Amino acid sequence: MEIEHPYLMFLGDARDQLAAKTAQGIVDWRKDWCLGQMRLEGCNADIGLSDMAIDEAVQRGARTLVVGVANAGGVLPDHWVDTIVEALNAGLSVATGLHTRLSSVPRIAAAAKANSGQLHDVRFSDQKFDTGKGHKRSGKRLLTVGTDCSCGKKYTALAMEKEMRARGLNADFCATGQTGVFISGRGISIDAVVADFISGAAEWLSPDNDADHWDVVEGQGSLFHPSFAGVSMGLLHGSQPDVFVVCHEPTRAIMRGVETPLPTIQQVIDQTIASGSLTNPNIQCVGLAVNTIALDDAAMGRCLAELSEQYRLPASDPMRGGVSAIVDELISRSST
Amino acid sequence: MEIEHPYLMFLGDARDQLAAKTAQGIVDWRKDWCLGQMRLEGCNADIGLSDMAIDEAVQRGARTLVVGVANAGGVLPDHWVDTIVEALNAGLSVATGLHTRLSSVPRIAAAAKANSGQLHDVRFSDQKFDTGKGHKRSGKRLLTVGTDCSCGKKYTALAMEKEMRARGLNADFCATGQTGVFISGRGISIDAVVADFISGAAEWLSPDNDADHWDVVEGQGSLFHPSFAGVSMGLLHGSQPDVFVVCHEPTRAIMRGVETPLPTIQQVIDQTIASGSLTNPNIQCVGLAVNTIALDDAAMGRCLAELSEQYRLPASDPMRGGVSAIVDELISRSST
Repeated sequence: MEIEHPYLMFLGDARDQLAAKTAQGIVDWRKDWCLGQMRLEGCNADIGLSDMAIDEAVQRGARTLVVGVANAGGVLPDHWVDTIVEALNAGLSVATGLHTRLSSVPRIAAAAKANSGQLHDVRFSDQKFDTGKGHKRSGKRLLTVGTDCSCGKKYTALAMEKEMRARGLNADFCATGQTGVFISGRGISIDAVVADFISGAAEWLSPDNDADHWDVVEGQGSLFHPSFAGVSMGLLHGSQPDVFVVCHEPTRAIMRGVETPLPTIQQVIDQTIASGSLTNPNIQCVGLAVNTIALDDAAMGRCLAELSEQYRLPASDPMRGGVSAIVDELISRSST
Repeated sequence: MEIEHPYLMFLGDARDQLAAKTAQGIVDWRKDWCLGQMRLEGCNADIGLSDMAIDEAVQRGARTLVVGVANAGGVLPDHWVDTIVEALNAGLSVATGLHTRLSSVPRIAAAAKANSGQLHDVRFSDQKFDTGKGHKRSGKRLLTVGTDCSCGKKYTALAMEKEMRARGLNADFCATGQTGVFISGRGISIDAVVADFISGAAEWLSPDNDADHWDVVEGQGSLFHPSFAGVSMGLLHGSQPDVFVVCHEPTRAIMRGVETPLPTIQQVIDQTIASGSLTNPNIQCVGLAVNTIALDDAAMGRCLAELSEQYRLPASDPMRGGVSAIVDELISRSST
């Protein structure tokens, strides 16, 4: 799956800003790729781009209409179909993360065919993978892991890519979820892969590369989450990371969507090393990425200092202080 | 997926006995359900049943034609279609474990529709599952786990079910793979489930039950197999076993299909308890099921004695000595 940019961001009639979370994530990390936003009447979201119609976006070089908004149930409402068909007729491709496959809507399928437009359903994975082999590949890999779902693994990976590139390192973000795929233009929604091929898909995602190249792989779920640990395990084995960063939200008591208590950071470090050693015996933790959204500045400072002291690892919030210290640690450990 | 028996076993023109492994497994464990075998010209397999034509099978009460044979690539050869259509026209359902979906063959789809016949593609899972929740369910569960793939987890679970029933326990085998689904008439090919729903599918498979009821869940893969550990992890979390049996082939040095060394039994016990505790803190190991097919009687005796001594657990080969000692251990631990 390779989604061509620049993007025109379609927000439909999003009820609120949260409904446009995917679109916002794309703008946060790939503003250069986003020409404008297109909103229908009643839209209550705004991702800070100029409002732009399809014909203007095409004139400015847009390649893909990105449906960066989710509504209840993830279905494609009928009243969005006109816009999608218009985009296809204007020569754009269309990408969505909805549960409805674009090609399942006859008018969309017909317009795509007539205009040779690509339809990208990033929630689905139709690609065939091999089963994982476990062979050591060339190049280096970083994986973000978590004490829970939805605690900052994607943003941490993107922040690491950005900081590593700023230091002159050869680093590429590898997307394993929908928003990540939009942000990088390629990748896999790994939770949509058939179970037998989780680690194989992760191996495909970060193939052999130059010795100094880093794949920065977006983690998913948690080895301690009763819903998703299988995905986390296959992704760990397949991505065979040299280093990992533990992502953590310090105010959570139970994991998202279940009643299971959050594991400790130490449990996550120990289990990630224990399981990750199967495909990379040198795996090590280089830092803690702490999502401090629920803390004020003083509380954040105390929290990061305590965690850094306790684990003897750099601890920072990628969204508030950056990941400079974690990249320092990565460089220092990689060069020894 | 509920496959009605009795079965007529279709062996096609199986090249050799190994190609009829699935059919043989069904006969080994559910001979009462198998009325006869149907073979085409050139068939070199024989599963020890009377040869029987479709009309005779129907007269004797057959409900389903089971395609219990695999050929290279798992495709459905054209010259089997006549038999399948004939079976549907005679009122049977049809079940296969092939990669080709029965309904993708127009003549088969038409015959199924005309006769309201069920088509069971047990390799696929079209069922929708919830994500796993991790709640403790009522009733008791046993899971077979392994040091590797293909080391006896299905046969061990079936042997445990048989012996537990013989002792008057209320036990049901829960299938998680194709052959197991044919053997139990229901279940899930859990490796065909979308990755996000592995543990949810396992929760669905062994729902709340009577306090004295045992679900005996067929394990898959190994927590230490770089191809399939994600499946094993999700199955462990979702089946939340009270007890587990470790299945092991003592002469293997590396795992099936990869170059990864086999883990030790102790590693498997420790990791299964560590990960399984997430959804069942009381998880414990009740025995070792050793696949001694590569050993003569004397070597088998030494091997089992050594393992039993080393791990202080009953060790037996389900196919050569039965699992009586393991069921003793299970009963003794469950009653304390």
